[in-house]
Amino acid sequence: MTDTAATIGLCWAEIIAVGSELLVPPRLDTNSLFITGCLNELGIEVRAKTVVGDRRDDVAVVLRGALDRVHLVVMCGGLGPTDDDLTRDAAAGLLGMRLVEDELVLDRIRQRFASRGMRMPETNRRQALVPVGAEVLPNQNGTAPGLWIERDGRILILLPGPPDELEPMFAQVAAERLAPRAGGGKICRKVLRICGRTESEVEELVFATYSRWTREALPIATTVLTASAQIELHLSVHAATEAIGLARLDDARRQVAAIVGADIFSVDGRALEQVVGDALRQRGWRIAVAESCTGGLISSRLTDVAGSSDYVLVNAVCYNNEAKTTWLGVPAELIHAFGAVSEEVATAMADGVRERAGVEVSVGVTGIAGPTGGSERKPVGTVAIAVITPDARIVRTFRFPGGRLRVKQFAAQMALDMVRRVLSDAEIGGAFVLRRAPESFGS
Amino acid sequence: MTDTAATIGLCWAEIIAVGSELLVPPRLDTNSLFITGCLNELGIEVRAKTVVGDRRDDVAVVLRGALDRVHLVVMCGGLGPTDDDLTRDAAAGLLGMRLVEDELVLDRIRQRFASRGMRMPETNRRQALVPVGAEVLPNQNGTAPGLWIERDGRILILLPGPPDELEPMFAQVAAERLAPRAGGGKICRKVLRICGRTESEVEELVFATYSRWTREALPIATTVLTASAQIELHLSVHAATEAIGLARLDDARRQVAAIVGADIFSVDGRALEQVVGDALRQRGWRIAVAESCTGGLISSRLTDVAGSSDYVLVNAVCYNNEAKTTWLGVPAELIHAFGAVSEEVATAMADGVRERAGVEVSVGVTGIAGPTGGSERKPVGTVAIAVITPDARIVRTFRFPGGRLRVKQFAAQMALDMVRRVLSDAEIGGAFVLRRAPESFGS
Repeated sequence: MTDTAATIGLCWAEIIAVGSELLVPPRLDTNSLFITGCLNELGIEVRAKTVVGDRRDDVAVVLRGALDRVHLVVMCGGLGPTDDDLTRDAAAGLLGMRLVEDELVLDRIRQRFASRGMRMPETNRRQALVPVGAEVLPNQNGTAPGLWIERDGRILILLPGPPDELEPMFAQVAAERLAPRAGGGKICRKVLRICGRTESEVEELVFATYSRWTREALPIATTVLTASAQIELHLSVHAATEAIGLARLDDARRQVAAIVGADIFSVDGRALEQVVGDALRQRGWRIAVAESCTGGLISSRLTDVAGSSDYVLVNAVCYNNEAKTTWLGVPAELIHAFGAVSEEVATAMADGVRERAGVEVSVGVTGIAGPTGGSERKPVGTVAIAVITPDARIVRTFRFPGGRLRVKQFAAQMALDMVRRVLSDAEIGGAFVLRRAPESFGS
Repeated sequence: MTDTAATIGLCWAEIIAVGSELLVPPRLDTNSLFITGCLNELGIEVRAKTVVGDRRDDVAVVLRGALDRVHLVVMCGGLGPTDDDLTRDAAAGLLGMRLVEDELVLDRIRQRFASRGMRMPETNRRQALVPVGAEVLPNQNGTAPGLWIERDGRILILLPGPPDELEPMFAQVAAERLAPRAGGGKICRKVLRICGRTESEVEELVFATYSRWTREALPIATTVLTASAQIELHLSVHAATEAIGLARLDDARRQVAAIVGADIFSVDGRALEQVVGDALRQRGWRIAVAESCTGGLISSRLTDVAGSSDYVLVNAVCYNNEAKTTWLGVPAELIHAFGAVSEEVATAMADGVRERAGVEVSVGVTGIAGPTGGSERKPVGTVAIAVITPDARIVRTFRFPGGRLRVKQFAAQMALDMVRRVLSDAEIGGAFVLRRAPESFGS
């Protein structure tokens, strides 16, 4: 349709996922993420992706649109043995290619069944139909082979839907067939992870910078993703070589770091719990956590890291007052005087677990996750977090937004971030910190 | 294009998301899930959905294709103030509608900025452009209004991209403008959650049943989703009324229950931790968990449930042998004799935490999450789980597949499921249970 496409060659692609089940709310098409990643590695950008239901006409119309716009179309799904599986028919029909049963493919499918002591059902025969002129892409993990169709300067790749069949097949196609023809350089990515600021603060601080990047030579595309108390800047650049791309992204990283400083906690893909674990390991310190409102989430995140048993010995979840006293030695009078959700109790929890576990670093977290339990002075989302090390005693009160699960996630994230900052002598991040804690003990 | 579309009316829709940032691997278009849910409520099925980058020609071509196929197209994103935001232009251009600045819209945008003490930047002016003949959909949470365009029997709805702006706007449009015109009945859904079987077991058992549903009057569509040790059957039916649809789904539920029995743990949307919590509350019992390899995940899931402080007092994560002895009273000799990962130690952990917490129900979990720590006799994925109540003492050894995080997830899920089954006097699910435990104590 747009004729520029014809001159661009393998710089652009489109992805089409076929299957009515992908149009039902809980399902998302995640195959396209894998395919996009492989294509980007080769410097090929994805220009559009479509999910279309099991209707032959719809599949054909969507495919024709894509072939009009780009030279490379990747389709996934709809190659199975049932009547719903119509990708093969729709593609062959649109391109005017005749379908012929391929003896080799049929043999392979029969063998696959035989190896499990089964006879191939007649319905599977249609998986052996191959458009005349197409090349077969063997499937190591299933019965439906993929197809490579080249026609009128366009490449159409048909892949089976199950990820464990699709992924190895497409990885091989990308390496062996697409890479030699994609002379378009490489798309490099970097993810900067930030904690201790709100999304709008980060936007406000960094927006001018990343707007400028889009207008410079070697433009950088930026996407901002936010999970509870974690903001990710995803930077990508399409460069002639990986070295040039990475240098460009590293320069961008420095620009962001100059603005947000110690709030960047990861530039190499590490999660916050991994960064904390690495910092503990470097000092030879061990950690213990006493959790109330986070209910074990901090402990679970710390132990998501392989090798964390080197520095995690014991953590305690003390959900009521009595448990805080019995298990952590928090004086009942302290709870009575200041309330269970207070900087005093968070600190006493951290002291208690640190002493009883015999470790160097400890964390105490107490708060109101909701939906009930809040008051005017301490509404839902109020959380006190204490971090104690041989060198420091830090406590803060936060006010987190959202419901029960978000408050848990925010509190766990900020607790881990406080540990990270204390271990690297950085200031504690300001986001969500109450300047005047409801009951401050003058820290 | 297909002329049947013209006669079907508001039974079918397509969704188009605009934005190059949605074509970068980490991003998924989740707005379409919300929109699909609202449309399904009205009996409108989504026939295709497309994500297209910020290219005016591409947006126009994709939109034309959709308008050829269906009578209702919902577009989201690309209504912002920057040059990238070209949905409005592309749609107006395609439909031959002139764009005119709307004074009321412009006023509203100016006021929005003024209310924060800011002047409206000139670039935001373009958000006030409205195609002549379109209706403005006010935006409560942002500057970009939505647009409702009706033309040649087709309805085109343009929505802003941020979910907190899109969702209330589309919910209102669906209720006020689409509902009266969608005479197509209702799409009802039910989710059956199953634990204690592998996905292939469930497929094998239920496949014939749900294949039959698709051929019956009032066909049911079934999607199978699997997370670690949890299998979900998503059933949906398009019925004339909600009552008819729900009756049909309830009948389907009974058919599945007759096959998989107590392995169905939820038919009403409740998560496993909620089902466990409800069962505890019904008996007036409290629970304590002693975790090793799950690292706090079971505790965190139990406390995800609002009101769980009624039955969760204290949980302990004891990651090394000494902690199991000091904190839970597991005899060091027992660990020495049977190994930390054994049914004996799991049981002693459960006994210890039960006695020390003074509760009725307890769980002990010990295993090898990996990647290191496995042996030939006890490879990575070996996990012993004990559940103790006033009436029962149950212990099982499992062998879970996958890496560290999956083993944690599997173990947490199966531990909660064991509690559920013990509380409802059901058999323990067989999936992943080792028939001959490495070191069984003859239970």
